[in-house]
Amino acid sequence: MRFLSLLAASALFFAAPALAEETLREQARAQFGAIPLVPPALPYAEASPERLTLGQKLFFDPRLSENQDMSCSTCHNIGMGGVDGRATGHGGQLGGRKVETVLNAAFNASQYWDGRASDLADQVQRSVMVFPAATLRTQGGPIMVTPTQVAATKQHVVDRLKGIPGYVAAFKAAFPAEPEPVTYDNIAKSIAVFEATLITPGAPFDRWLGGDDSAMTEDARQGLALFIGKGCAGCHSGVNFGGAGYAKFGAVQSPGADLLPTDDAGRFTITHVVQDKFVFKIPGLRNVELTAPYFHSDRVADLRQAIAVMGETQLGQKLSTEEIVKIEAFLTALTGKQPEVVLPILPPRSAR
Amino acid sequence: MRFLSLLAASALFFAAPALAEETLREQARAQFGAIPLVPPALPYAEASPERLTLGQKLFFDPRLSENQDMSCSTCHNIGMGGVDGRATGHGGQLGGRKVETVLNAAFNASQYWDGRASDLADQVQRSVMVFPAATLRTQGGPIMVTPTQVAATKQHVVDRLKGIPGYVAAFKAAFPAEPEPVTYDNIAKSIAVFEATLITPGAPFDRWLGGDDSAMTEDARQGLALFIGKGCAGCHSGVNFGGAGYAKFGAVQSPGADLLPTDDAGRFTITHVVQDKFVFKIPGLRNVELTAPYFHSDRVADLRQAIAVMGETQLGQKLSTEEIVKIEAFLTALTGKQPEVVLPILPPRSAR
Repeated sequence: MRFLSLLAASALFFAAPALAEETLREQARAQFGAIPLVPPALPYAEASPERLTLGQKLFFDPRLSENQDMSCSTCHNIGMGGVDGRATGHGGQLGGRKVETVLNAAFNASQYWDGRASDLADQVQRSVMVFPAATLRTQGGPIMVTPTQVAATKQHVVDRLKGIPGYVAAFKAAFPAEPEPVTYDNIAKSIAVFEATLITPGAPFDRWLGGDDSAMTEDARQGLALFIGKGCAGCHSGVNFGGAGYAKFGAVQSPGADLLPTDDAGRFTITHVVQDKFVFKIPGLRNVELTAPYFHSDRVADLRQAIAVMGETQLGQKLSTEEIVKIEAFLTALTGKQPEVVLPILPPRSAR
Repeated sequence: MRFLSLLAASALFFAAPALAEETLREQARAQFGAIPLVPPALPYAEASPERLTLGQKLFFDPRLSENQDMSCSTCHNIGMGGVDGRATGHGGQLGGRKVETVLNAAFNASQYWDGRASDLADQVQRSVMVFPAATLRTQGGPIMVTPTQVAATKQHVVDRLKGIPGYVAAFKAAFPAEPEPVTYDNIAKSIAVFEATLITPGAPFDRWLGGDDSAMTEDARQGLALFIGKGCAGCHSGVNFGGAGYAKFGAVQSPGADLLPTDDAGRFTITHVVQDKFVFKIPGLRNVELTAPYFHSDRVADLRQAIAVMGETQLGQKLSTEEIVKIEAFLTALTGKQPEVVLPILPPRSAR
């Protein structure tokens, strides 16, 4: 009997952490989710191999910008976590917002820091590249461009692509039912189809969520428990750990004008609703260790510092160094397998 | 007997073009050469898998420029024939020279239009990217940069890479015998090793040269005969159909200030020898259909027009439309298999 009860006790002793792990996993499954292994279908842009091939070429083609000096990949660098790693206000120019990552962007409910685009195709439509790279970068998109300029630029790009026989054939193959397939709408749809493939499955967290206990370190697991327990997951939830809603930067305590420049009122500039002043999209945290510097204002290079700032401004809590280190360990477990993309060979323009 | 002599006559009848083809092939073998299937060894930069991997990352990394806004691939776009397809004098800024292709550049005897760099590693050393992209582009390299600025920029780049743990490890693996391997010299060597892999074998001409009669069209074969017969091959010879020597642009007849702006004296700016005024490197013609616009001055978008200009300015001959079309057919037979490069995932910087 004594032997049996000892057995039972030791079983309990070993079962307790296992039970805690299962509880944490169930909580995590309810609040987050793993990146799927295959690209998601986009209701606004039906995929086909031809559209994917076309979208991949367009994504890398600098001829899509007015000055032919930048492509989507200039700012959304797939090799750098889907961003450009640069701080705003570069070269003495102020203003602008941090580039958002293109990786897993298909899982976001809206695009841009102010949520002004509903989906990826809409984002392409709005990211019309009128200025030379350096200028556009500080505008955070075509904010300063008049509708006439936008229309003219789109027409220039469409006309330019129409002069490239390889593209004319590629658009015909991608949109076979359309008599005039080279349109800005179809540019946007094709790029969206390609961008939807830029997902990063297989992160340690995802493997742990799938049942692989050894995929996350003990620090990362404790960091996850803190991430949920402290309230971070209140905003940063879903497959992307964010990307689905909006929050005021400084919900509890203002981060100050350095991190929250007063000349950028965030979502208010789109909705003109007073409650939206300094409200921004909650960014996704997948691959966050690769996407420094942080916040829409780009001012924080250190992930630990960013965690501390979030604790204070959004939750009104001063996190301890130990807590910050563990949450960081968890956040780095959100880094998935980066997309393997073959650089496309772009069709040459024809002189005739 | 009559039957036999008829056979002999018809054999002669069919043998004549075959003989002509063999003669042309022998001439071509003597004057040109096929792109090898494997990258050439560089005497100044020994290759290893680790150096190749490192060089590939560096080639695509915008953090190699002072402003972190351009990489080697910004101007030397592997998907666009190794160039950027842009004309100089863009955005109202004058001056500058056309980007030279990185494809098959390892086979050139010198680099830059004025030949100022002896090899690929030297070219990387001299292409220090100090300015924002738009400015650098019009400078045609660091001509306007003082030696002090160059040294400071190189040191910035080296210091930046030293702050990226993934690069420190990659340099150690690539240069295992060196205690401090993160140097600008090693950056240049690694990029040169990668660039040497950017070759385009398998062009129709190369396959024809190897004995495949059907690889080139009849027009292209006649174009090749014209290319040799008219004298083009006098300068455009060797594996790269150029890249080995220098010539005055306007050897026989000046192309005029539009194609030969008087403020760019070419090789004279390097040698200060009067005979080198308006002398430029003879560009290679591999993949020339992909690298428009043409000439160092970038002013001619049409390959046929470029052929006509060359005939007049270098050979003093007005080529007929038929001759031009055939030479163009031959030149497009120099387009090889473009390099298939997987976009490298770049190591993230560390905040600590």
